[in-house]
Amino acid sequence: MNADEHAGVVVIGAGSGGLTVAVGLSRLGRSVVLVEGHHIGGDCTNVGCIPSKSLLHHSRVHAVARPATRRGTREILASVRARRTALRLHEVDEFGSMDGIDLRFGRARLLGDGEVEIAEASGRTVRVAAKHIVVATGSAPRRIPIDGVPDQMVVTNNELFELDDVPDHLVIVGGGPIGVEMAVAFVRLGCRVTVLEAAPQLLPQMLPEAAAIVHRSLTEMGIDVRVGAVAHRYDQNLGQIAVGPLGGDATGIVEDVDRILMAVGRVPNTDGLGLDVAGVDTDAGGRIVIDPKGRTSADGIWACGDVTDRGGTTHLANAWGRRVIKHILAPVAPAGAEPERPAVAFTEPEAGCIGVQPVDVPDDVMRLRVALADIDRGYTDELGDGVLIVDVRRFSGKVLGATVVGPRAGELIGLFALAMKNDLAFHKWYGTVWPYPTYGEAIGRAVDEYMATTLPKLPAELAGWVRGRLRTIR
Amino acid sequence: MNADEHAGVVVIGAGSGGLTVAVGLSRLGRSVVLVEGHHIGGDCTNVGCIPSKSLLHHSRVHAVARPATRRGTREILASVRARRTALRLHEVDEFGSMDGIDLRFGRARLLGDGEVEIAEASGRTVRVAAKHIVVATGSAPRRIPIDGVPDQMVVTNNELFELDDVPDHLVIVGGGPIGVEMAVAFVRLGCRVTVLEAAPQLLPQMLPEAAAIVHRSLTEMGIDVRVGAVAHRYDQNLGQIAVGPLGGDATGIVEDVDRILMAVGRVPNTDGLGLDVAGVDTDAGGRIVIDPKGRTSADGIWACGDVTDRGGTTHLANAWGRRVIKHILAPVAPAGAEPERPAVAFTEPEAGCIGVQPVDVPDDVMRLRVALADIDRGYTDELGDGVLIVDVRRFSGKVLGATVVGPRAGELIGLFALAMKNDLAFHKWYGTVWPYPTYGEAIGRAVDEYMATTLPKLPAELAGWVRGRLRTIR
Repeated sequence: MNADEHAGVVVIGAGSGGLTVAVGLSRLGRSVVLVEGHHIGGDCTNVGCIPSKSLLHHSRVHAVARPATRRGTREILASVRARRTALRLHEVDEFGSMDGIDLRFGRARLLGDGEVEIAEASGRTVRVAAKHIVVATGSAPRRIPIDGVPDQMVVTNNELFELDDVPDHLVIVGGGPIGVEMAVAFVRLGCRVTVLEAAPQLLPQMLPEAAAIVHRSLTEMGIDVRVGAVAHRYDQNLGQIAVGPLGGDATGIVEDVDRILMAVGRVPNTDGLGLDVAGVDTDAGGRIVIDPKGRTSADGIWACGDVTDRGGTTHLANAWGRRVIKHILAPVAPAGAEPERPAVAFTEPEAGCIGVQPVDVPDDVMRLRVALADIDRGYTDELGDGVLIVDVRRFSGKVLGATVVGPRAGELIGLFALAMKNDLAFHKWYGTVWPYPTYGEAIGRAVDEYMATTLPKLPAELAGWVRGRLRTIR
Repeated sequence: MNADEHAGVVVIGAGSGGLTVAVGLSRLGRSVVLVEGHHIGGDCTNVGCIPSKSLLHHSRVHAVARPATRRGTREILASVRARRTALRLHEVDEFGSMDGIDLRFGRARLLGDGEVEIAEASGRTVRVAAKHIVVATGSAPRRIPIDGVPDQMVVTNNELFELDDVPDHLVIVGGGPIGVEMAVAFVRLGCRVTVLEAAPQLLPQMLPEAAAIVHRSLTEMGIDVRVGAVAHRYDQNLGQIAVGPLGGDATGIVEDVDRILMAVGRVPNTDGLGLDVAGVDTDAGGRIVIDPKGRTSADGIWACGDVTDRGGTTHLANAWGRRVIKHILAPVAPAGAEPERPAVAFTEPEAGCIGVQPVDVPDDVMRLRVALADIDRGYTDELGDGVLIVDVRRFSGKVLGATVVGPRAGELIGLFALAMKNDLAFHKWYGTVWPYPTYGEAIGRAVDEYMATTLPKLPAELAGWVRGRLRTIR
């Protein structure tokens, strides 16, 4: 062993996943070395959820008319940056001073045999040996080259919030959660916004009817949404992008482009990590493959968050970080069911989903739909679109998945996360007193519909009566 | 038997409770006579939740500056009335045509021996005999006389939404849910608003710290809130009300009063119902006493909703109406636990509670508090006040009650309603993946705190590890 130092655990990356593991293990008495190459808090705090949701908030609250925007919008962007920086400093302060966490700024590389080399920002390089190494290096925005586009015209979420110069016309490549959220924020700020999405719908991970509501909403806000379209090439003289289907001919143009936001997914941060030296397997997308306990293919090396094949969001990084803690402490404990994967796009209205909902409903599944405009809160709120879609297995009542598009969708998806984690069969939801008038009433309607169409599965409390009725019918 | 007609069930009152029973039983094949004295939909549709939440919505969305209000506000009130009327007509249409429901407009009186006399609006009087009679006559606003106040100055929720003349200064007597909601709506419409509440806090049914947040919020909106104060007398010459503690001397005045909204609770609608003739017992407040199945003291007579001692809201009337249906169909089925009683005031922020949370926390209860400003969504939303307070029994993890003051409180209380109905112990909430960033994260924080301070009660999956640690400690 040539190690310069020894630690209980080395955690690589101080984003949502890494911080969860480092803080959790240090609180439980483990000595933790935490290596961070850039910013405490990771992408979420610095260039992700925090600034994007702050911008959505500011753009809604301080929405300004087009003529007033240039200055107003600059102020809003500056305010978002200031708050983000304040949060970052707060986190550095909080985590920097935490007992048991030895925070090092620098780059880490796996050496195999339970060792990590840390090239510290100070210039010093140390080898640290640890029984457990946790890789939580996150991901970076994917970039797709577009013919003829000058580099300085393209931003990702890494640069978006640093803009001083508010674009007149922002073209967003990618209609996933980041793309649609930033479309809403920037159109509210007075920018012209165009969204290009290669798939036939926005939010390709959601049910088409849910995505269609978001599409209509964006269109009503004045956003030019083009689905089934990618950017083919940019003509610098004309200032326009030729667009069309992927692999097909250009079928249209987008004019007067002055800024492009690239929002076409994420790539795992694994460069220079030494995964191959350490024997850590990755999938075809380069993501670290983990098992249900959070273990990689290499003994003693764990991973969580966006760098893995089970990541993609802050809340999943946190959930898998907790799994890693549990199994470092209790290696033989059963892993249990994998955490649900809720996803919410904070558009207006919000759009969220959880679980599995195939476009074609299997025979043994009942798909329950409630239009939010039909419940009383939707009525008093003058809601137009908006829907709850719940998939329930016909005979067991097992809730397989849910989609909500409407006000407060994020909280309703959280409710499904709690219930699905506890495998609460849908007939057990019957009899819940939903406060009136709230959007929860939509869930009550879905339960009523389920109960009405699944008479033999009425709850146990009605079983006696059901048997009586069945005897009468016979 | 002198009955003119026979029916399976007579339901008296077509509000939330009565409609639930009538529609439910008719769908299950019972012949139902439904008697309504006034409006289909009851107070909720006509003078309660629907117009009040519509007004809150309109006042938020179409909020107008003071100089523009008189005309703008009239239009908003007219729009609320138009929507309410549309909903009422829709309901009349829907319920009027429903198979199996025989709707009669008129007044009903219990005659005993399973008979009801209906004085129909047409002038005809009929006696109907039925095996089951369900009383769901609801409640009316309580009025407290104030010395010197001319009758025409006082409105209740019955008249509030009919006002053509928008008050310059609305004095609201009563700081319960109706009082605080209408204070918010009318101050947004540009009125001067004063709220008088006899108790030492607004929303007396909520924890003082929750009420304090609503109090601050109302004050920040410019509402003059006076707690521990009732109206003593009105001086018509000066146009002012002397106010002070109940039973004490006047300690202040409210000037330039031009309208008073009386919002001091409700009284059950039992006049002329013949409860004594039928042998239906009431409590000291005149409310019909029901058992956990919804039965009154008189055989074959049931009751639900505001007219009973378990009412008070639309959602409870609905819940108890469902109980009545169940036990009319299945008399011997066990009643089961009584429904939870969630309550939400749709102020800004919303304030809601469910279950039992005494001011002084019992020894065996852990009270968990999470400031919503401390979670990330609160941070991005620039939230000031706002709190989640959960009471959990120390060793079992049983959730006893919850209070939420903040954005989307109504949906979060619905989540607690579902979980508490299913008696989901708090440690089973651990591991839920709350979508990020939503207010549900506050619940996750509370669960974390509960788990961290209740180590011996970690979930079963960690039991092995806990036993190991305990052995080490010994």
